[in-house]
Amino acid sequence: MTTDFAATRALFHLPEGVIYLDGNSLGPLPRSAAARVADCVTKEWGEMLIRGWNAAGWMDQPMKQGNRIARLIGAEPDSVVLGDTLSIKVYQALAAALDMVPGRKVILSDTGNFPSDLYMAEGLCRTLGPDYRLVTVAPEDVAGAITDEVAVLMLTQVDYRTGRMHDMAALTALAHEKGAIAVWDLAHSAGALPVELAGCKADFAVGCTYKYLNSGPGGPAFIYVAPRHQDRALPALSGWLGHAAPFAFDLAYRPGAGVERMRVGTPPILQLAALEASLDIWDTVDMQALRARSVALCEAFIAGVEATCPDLALASPRDATQRGSQVSFRHPEGYAIMQALIAQGVIGDFRAPDILRFGFTPLYTSDADVEGAVAILAKIMASGSWDRPEFKARAKVT
Amino acid sequence: MTTDFAATRALFHLPEGVIYLDGNSLGPLPRSAAARVADCVTKEWGEMLIRGWNAAGWMDQPMKQGNRIARLIGAEPDSVVLGDTLSIKVYQALAAALDMVPGRKVILSDTGNFPSDLYMAEGLCRTLGPDYRLVTVAPEDVAGAITDEVAVLMLTQVDYRTGRMHDMAALTALAHEKGAIAVWDLAHSAGALPVELAGCKADFAVGCTYKYLNSGPGGPAFIYVAPRHQDRALPALSGWLGHAAPFAFDLAYRPGAGVERMRVGTPPILQLAALEASLDIWDTVDMQALRARSVALCEAFIAGVEATCPDLALASPRDATQRGSQVSFRHPEGYAIMQALIAQGVIGDFRAPDILRFGFTPLYTSDADVEGAVAILAKIMASGSWDRPEFKARAKVT
Repeated sequence: MTTDFAATRALFHLPEGVIYLDGNSLGPLPRSAAARVADCVTKEWGEMLIRGWNAAGWMDQPMKQGNRIARLIGAEPDSVVLGDTLSIKVYQALAAALDMVPGRKVILSDTGNFPSDLYMAEGLCRTLGPDYRLVTVAPEDVAGAITDEVAVLMLTQVDYRTGRMHDMAALTALAHEKGAIAVWDLAHSAGALPVELAGCKADFAVGCTYKYLNSGPGGPAFIYVAPRHQDRALPALSGWLGHAAPFAFDLAYRPGAGVERMRVGTPPILQLAALEASLDIWDTVDMQALRARSVALCEAFIAGVEATCPDLALASPRDATQRGSQVSFRHPEGYAIMQALIAQGVIGDFRAPDILRFGFTPLYTSDADVEGAVAILAKIMASGSWDRPEFKARAKVT
Repeated sequence: MTTDFAATRALFHLPEGVIYLDGNSLGPLPRSAAARVADCVTKEWGEMLIRGWNAAGWMDQPMKQGNRIARLIGAEPDSVVLGDTLSIKVYQALAAALDMVPGRKVILSDTGNFPSDLYMAEGLCRTLGPDYRLVTVAPEDVAGAITDEVAVLMLTQVDYRTGRMHDMAALTALAHEKGAIAVWDLAHSAGALPVELAGCKADFAVGCTYKYLNSGPGGPAFIYVAPRHQDRALPALSGWLGHAAPFAFDLAYRPGAGVERMRVGTPPILQLAALEASLDIWDTVDMQALRARSVALCEAFIAGVEATCPDLALASPRDATQRGSQVSFRHPEGYAIMQALIAQGVIGDFRAPDILRFGFTPLYTSDADVEGAVAILAKIMASGSWDRPEFKARAKVT
């Protein structure tokens, strides 16, 4: 296990002149991914054609790569499988969870959750019928809102805007006390910090791989189902690759054993090849060392910005134990400030209405990145150089 | 528009010593796809990082590539969008369709449909509640089974085992007469033959791109929503990229305008890059010429096999107008025969219980391929060389 983050940095392609603090939105390219994907395209698809499903092991990729992610999130072997997008995995987890608590019809979440997760819950409730509903409360009110009406507690561990972190162990225990099922979204946790799904007795978890796990744009999502639930969690999205015998082509659905029943359709093999290259790096990473380094980077950035940018208000928890691996500041002109930063090569991102968001990713963020980002941000804020029409014009994707 | 299929063949990588008749399962590699995917990985992901969503146009890929597929399937502009897998798109189409016929709770399909489509319908019915059900009849009995109880008629146009083709115009008209919605699966139609979705007044259609459309293993699926339905089709899988304003991060879901509301999560950009390269070829193809060539190839194969292999029984319709772009034969030892063929470089596939399946894909199947495949198959059948243990041992993926 490595604790040498200068060495891991060398394994990523980081463009000249860029300080990249947006790995919480899209991780950079692992150098070896280019060759891995090229091999997948030319040697596997090109030469093996259909035979690749067996010969190149394509069919096994969702479980094989899932088992590598399992270590990073404290999951048991054979409890994580790749596929689809995070939104689809949210729908699957919620549908299976609701099914396990007959008689209850409330999904509880918080207003700090990804809107996308809330949308998927809303769509599922509408599909299930008028008795089902999604209830959202403020993040700090979640614990008090877990009543015995709640079927499923659906939370994102790390808030995508502020980095504020929920206490997974405590809230899962509370949910269980009230007879509810806990579904955790790890989009900003997997690869960001040590997660202990089994240790926290989480029931379901979902996450994506294109953020901290560096699988590239549109890389597949994953779903975790606790071993104790795997053979009773009924897939609403009952696809053929989750069938007990996909190639028997039976007319009736019979869910497969274990977490593989959460597979739906044909897995995205090129994206999985890129993920595979990234996980070659992740396999070597000590998660406790990663966390220590992440905290150090975040603390240095907070200290630097607060010392030089009095107009920026810290939006993230000051206490590192309450924070994921990102730091956010608020400013009413946050959008323009972020564009000015990007124009100078410091890439973070903006989240409506006023959040400047900076991800710190020990695998490739250096101390010099932190110092450089602080210096450039300080200069932009001191000079007011963000106040220009080209920085205020909104792009399609923010 | 090209009718020169020797020229298109040169645009594909076809491995030495292989006669590839399985493009209906996984299309081969378009030569330009290797460079296109490599550019997407190194120049876009590697250099642009998160900026690729705007700068490389990633966010627009699902609609942009959808509009190119639209021509091949006779769809109106802006009525096709890429994403997810075919199974997910089936679920979306069925859920939206059921919603449009309040009071009716029956999905009608046939036993020749992809089991996968039936599984997804089954899962949706279970999610919707005990009143909903999937009814399947034999393919030839479909027309008579469209009663005024049927909410949705879900059919695959071309049978994946036999190539038998449903009459899309007639069955859609019948469905409409009875007040039902027609959902068509084009998995074995898109790129296989001219499809006229708009001409047939189809309501919804779904399809995949890794078969005849050559997008590579796990390439994304597509969904078609007729323009007249687009603004009332309510997405059950209400993901953030189908939201009216994905980057406003509103807490409540508001479906976007048009077919884009059927987008769910982050699109698979590497797979879309491969598709893009393939569509560069498809953009040049005259679909009527493709059909004529497909029929000629299939007829030649049927004639050749029937003249030399008396033990193989034609499973496909003899009448070309009733057949897609594949030819199937039955034999009780079909699996072993197919393995023997593959061992000699003729790649088709096997479908349980007894189907040998051969796809004919004018873009790269040559007359010499047909002659060579017939000659090798005839030799295997005459010698009985398929009757060996190594050909009878089943692989994981058949």
